[in-house]
Amino acid sequence: MKALITGGARSGKSRHALALAESLHPTRIFLATAEALDAEMAVRIDTHQRERGPEWVTIEEPLDLAPVLTRRHGHGHGDGGAVIVVDCLTLWLSNLMQAERDVPAEFARLTAAITAAQSSVVLVTNEVGFGIVPDSVLARSYRDHLGSLSQQVAAVCDRVVLVCAGLPLTLK
Amino acid sequence: MKALITGGARSGKSRHALALAESLHPTRIFLATAEALDAEMAVRIDTHQRERGPEWVTIEEPLDLAPVLTRRHGHGHGDGGAVIVVDCLTLWLSNLMQAERDVPAEFARLTAAITAAQSSVVLVTNEVGFGIVPDSVLARSYRDHLGSLSQQVAAVCDRVVLVCAGLPLTLK
Amino acid sequence: MKALITGGARSGKSRHALALAESLHPTRIFLATAEALDAEMAVRIDTHQRERGPEWVTIEEPLDLAPVLTRRHGHGHGDGGAVIVVDCLTLWLSNLMQAERDVPAEFARLTAAITAAQSSVVLVTNEVGFGIVPDSVLARSYRDHLGSLSQQVAAVCDRVVLVCAGLPLTLK
Repeated sequence: MKALITGGARSGKSRHALALAESLHPTRIFLATAEALDAEMAVRIDTHQRERGPEWVTIEEPLDLAPVLTRRHGHGHGDGGAVIVVDCLTLWLSNLMQAERDVPAEFARLTAAITAAQSSVVLVTNEVGFGIVPDSVLARSYRDHLGSLSQQVAAVCDRVVLVCAGLPLTLK
Repeated sequence: MKALITGGARSGKSRHALALAESLHPTRIFLATAEALDAEMAVRIDTHQRERGPEWVTIEEPLDLAPVLTRRHGHGHGDGGAVIVVDCLTLWLSNLMQAERDVPAEFARLTAAITAAQSSVVLVTNEVGFGIVPDSVLARSYRDHLGSLSQQVAAVCDRVVLVCAGLPLTLK
Repeated sequence: MKALITGGARSGKSRHALALAESLHPTRIFLATAEALDAEMAVRIDTHQRERGPEWVTIEEPLDLAPVLTRRHGHGHGDGGAVIVVDCLTLWLSNLMQAERDVPAEFARLTAAITAAQSSVVLVTNEVGFGIVPDSVLARSYRDHLGSLSQQVAAVCDRVVLVCAGLPLTLK
């Protein structure tokens, strides 16, 4: 199962992604695209980790998601699989742009890795294109890239869900 | 029946909420969170009131919604009930923040009152989290609070509807 | 068939509109509301035109959409009809406001023309009202007008689709 969970800010996307993942596989990996760059962030990341519980392994990776998705996980289980929650693509794109990576090439790497992954993958993203056109060139470029990423990832997923007010709306 | 109607700006949310309320009960209360702070606003509120028609009673309450929801309404009818339209939670949150109320405590009061209310309640809110992350700290805090409010209210409602281009999409 | 396709920026709306149009009629007209005001824009318009293929006729009209919709098209076919894709209402509204046209009157002209058109019409618009209230008066007025336009056009269409992550959600 490959799934994309999208929605607005504070819509309940991550909670929905975690619940879906928990229904899929006992070996659970949380692939966090946020980095603990300062003490406050470190505390927040630590809090989230404790909330998820001990059955979740957290991997922090701001940029190179593809190798984590295609790596063999879950040696303890016969199928060599796991479920990986990627939270979130919004921050990943921001990291890519800051690192001046080749964005379209990175999108192609990601979708290929999602398709190739033996594990189940649940990716979280945000809708950011339902507002007035932003003044900033960077913000416009960001929202264009993110819209394109959502379309590309949705195309290789089996399930796509829009979360609104904590409730899922199945798009695919 | 407890219902939450959400959607973008000028999507037809209020019209949908009024039509739903009119199908629910003959005793109709419009709980307005906007205040007539100046003459222009007073004219607008008056216009809306006349559009709703004489079978609607308007109560203006910017902050303390809970006691209005749990109060006994509709003495003229045997069931002691009514339908109350709360329009809108977006402005209510703005009023709470301006008055420096304890936002999470107020959310808990509201959801308890919705659950306890003998009357039917139809609440109107806005989706504000589908755009680029706002620059302003206040705007970010506002949209985080509103997203959380929508989730909490949706959880205690029987029906949740997203209105888009004047058309309802049932979430619950 | 009269259809409205809405969604966020880069959600796949135009692609969906073109695919729908191609399923409707062999005589295809692309009514572009964008104008080739400079060389860069001219190149972009030309690129899009080549992507659509030779079976599409492009008409550029920034303001007066109604006469194009009600005109007799497709003389080569027995039914005198065609399918017209209007891309997009968002830019059209922007053009109307810049030209200081009477916006409500123009909306009435458009919806009357959609209803009267012998051809199939597929209109593309954007959701812009799911963000924080914009600071600018002009942006607020724009999003109010666009929300109202979407409601009015949706009311005269047979089909209304919200596109999200490239996937259609049928509203009507």
